[in-house]
Amino acid sequence: MSEEKLSIEELGEFGLISHLTEKFKDKREETIRSIGDDAAVIGKGKIKTVVSTDMLVEGVHFDLSYVPLKHLGYKAVVVNVSDIYAMNAEPKQITVSIAVSSKFPLEALEELYEGIHRACEVYNVDLIGGDTSTSLSGLTISITAIGEAEEPKIVYRNTAQDGDLLICSGDYGGAYMGLQLLEREKQVFKAAPTAQPKLDGNDYVLERQLKPEARKDIIKQLAEIEVVPTSMIDVSDGLASEIFHIATQSDLGCQIYEDKIPIDEATYNLARDFNLDPTVCALNGGEDYELLLTVSQTDFDKFKNNPFFSIIGHMTDKPSGVNMVIKDRSVVPLKAQGWNHMNKEA
Amino acid sequence: MSEEKLSIEELGEFGLISHLTEKFKDKREETIRSIGDDAAVIGKGKIKTVVSTDMLVEGVHFDLSYVPLKHLGYKAVVVNVSDIYAMNAEPKQITVSIAVSSKFPLEALEELYEGIHRACEVYNVDLIGGDTSTSLSGLTISITAIGEAEEPKIVYRNTAQDGDLLICSGDYGGAYMGLQLLEREKQVFKAAPTAQPKLDGNDYVLERQLKPEARKDIIKQLAEIEVVPTSMIDVSDGLASEIFHIATQSDLGCQIYEDKIPIDEATYNLARDFNLDPTVCALNGGEDYELLLTVSQTDFDKFKNNPFFSIIGHMTDKPSGVNMVIKDRSVVPLKAQGWNHMNKEA
Repeated sequence: MSEEKLSIEELGEFGLISHLTEKFKDKREETIRSIGDDAAVIGKGKIKTVVSTDMLVEGVHFDLSYVPLKHLGYKAVVVNVSDIYAMNAEPKQITVSIAVSSKFPLEALEELYEGIHRACEVYNVDLIGGDTSTSLSGLTISITAIGEAEEPKIVYRNTAQDGDLLICSGDYGGAYMGLQLLEREKQVFKAAPTAQPKLDGNDYVLERQLKPEARKDIIKQLAEIEVVPTSMIDVSDGLASEIFHIATQSDLGCQIYEDKIPIDEATYNLARDFNLDPTVCALNGGEDYELLLTVSQTDFDKFKNNPFFSIIGHMTDKPSGVNMVIKDRSVVPLKAQGWNHMNKEA
Repeated sequence: MSEEKLSIEELGEFGLISHLTEKFKDKREETIRSIGDDAAVIGKGKIKTVVSTDMLVEGVHFDLSYVPLKHLGYKAVVVNVSDIYAMNAEPKQITVSIAVSSKFPLEALEELYEGIHRACEVYNVDLIGGDTSTSLSGLTISITAIGEAEEPKIVYRNTAQDGDLLICSGDYGGAYMGLQLLEREKQVFKAAPTAQPKLDGNDYVLERQLKPEARKDIIKQLAEIEVVPTSMIDVSDGLASEIFHIATQSDLGCQIYEDKIPIDEATYNLARDFNLDPTVCALNGGEDYELLLTVSQTDFDKFKNNPFFSIIGHMTDKPSGVNMVIKDRSVVPLKAQGWNHMNKEA
């Protein structure tokens, strides 16, 4: 199979990045960590600079027919600061570039920046620059977040150890179910434009989708209980996908327990209404913006019954593979569908 | 005139950025300079981090019918490191995010990254991260460049002094004439697809348009002659526009001399062929990626007859305005049309 025959779609997002960047070698001693983690780590002194960037494209990452622009601006910042927290670092500044059709009303951009402004207040980051450009159609937002951390406290995703506990914050699948709900109401609206959307009682999943928060509180909590995780990643592409990232990049296997995966009741019930398996939604839904981490077993007491965290499994050796103990106690290989924007296009 | 009635087009790029960001206030002591210069300056120690970002949109900033992707990748990096040099800083890392239709051939992206890779080698910067996403149509590239400089050597654009010499590197209007030439041949090709493009003998202007270089050598030269300019800016939006930025932001006026504006012979002759005024092309063409700086008159001897620089005028007090002494020795107010991508859309 010749590499030249591969298409962008076949490579997928992660495959495409590695393929395109395989020739790049770091030349600077100030480049501590480059491509391959939630954020890059740079700088010479004890305090390192941490940098992460994300691009959001209309029609791919968001649908303006049901995403309020203020929420979009807020979420665009959250997605980026979440990557900085995933390094156990503190976000300090962001740059925001937008490309937008000049037919876009100014009020719409004001709404977008209102959301960005709100997120800057909540996460205590400064907007330090950006670029504004016309696009031929639609809206594209590119944000770079910059943070700082002392070197020994920076946590990577490839440093989990065999036997470590696998721990996560929050609950899973909510943002995915919020998206399903919004998509369903959009279809209903298309068929009958006078119909009112049925969104009542689903505040939780809608908020998870439209206005997620980055887990600043978890980083604070880790500092308070004096734990530097052995590895950490933010859950943007689905819990299963991130478990694979930690396991594969740490050259380990992993065993998780289905009944330990935290799923909110609202998410669970809505998944059932949609005839979806709540566990599959939780594992593969994506956009949860929670933190997944590993810690040494010696820290068990600090996490047991700690309301900020759920212990969902442990790391194993590589030959054991990445597995899930399902509810009947049998062990099945974990599958990661991921949340691949490269494959999402119609 | 109510502000609410303004459209994106009326505000223009700079107006839009200030309008959208006027509510943002810096909260972090580590934020030394945010929006409003070529790059932001951040960090606590003596060595500051300098950050700049730019977005390039297909159909707005580049036309793939005549821009080779390798050159586009190269230029996308150059545009960003040029902003870092304009702070008298050294670029060290970049992040590159792209949004691209999945119908784009992989080979095309490989070409793009080949150009990015080449620029990383030439400018000695590491590619440390990025994001790859689908777009519904076309290609968007967002690059953030990160550099470093010792605080006292960082040069801003708003710190020129009355009486300072106004100095520039290189020559002007070449990239603009290269673009005119490529656009003309595109129209010829549309009318008669078998016609061969007439590009012979125009290597200089084509290279200025398709493969510009950032003036790393000028920063080195300034260090060698031991001059820290009193202000500096890179010339991306047209020489006149950048002169206005320095003058206005430094709260000064300026007087330049038309016969001192450096224009290459190839640019001059081609402008004449196109029935364009070479001075207008040089002042308003844009995309020159040269450096415009001010220095104290006491440094005159270091710049007189220095082949790296042209002295084109001097700063005056604000009430004198921004003027040009034209070839018949009369004084006219300088006009900046700029190179405004927000107004370029058809």
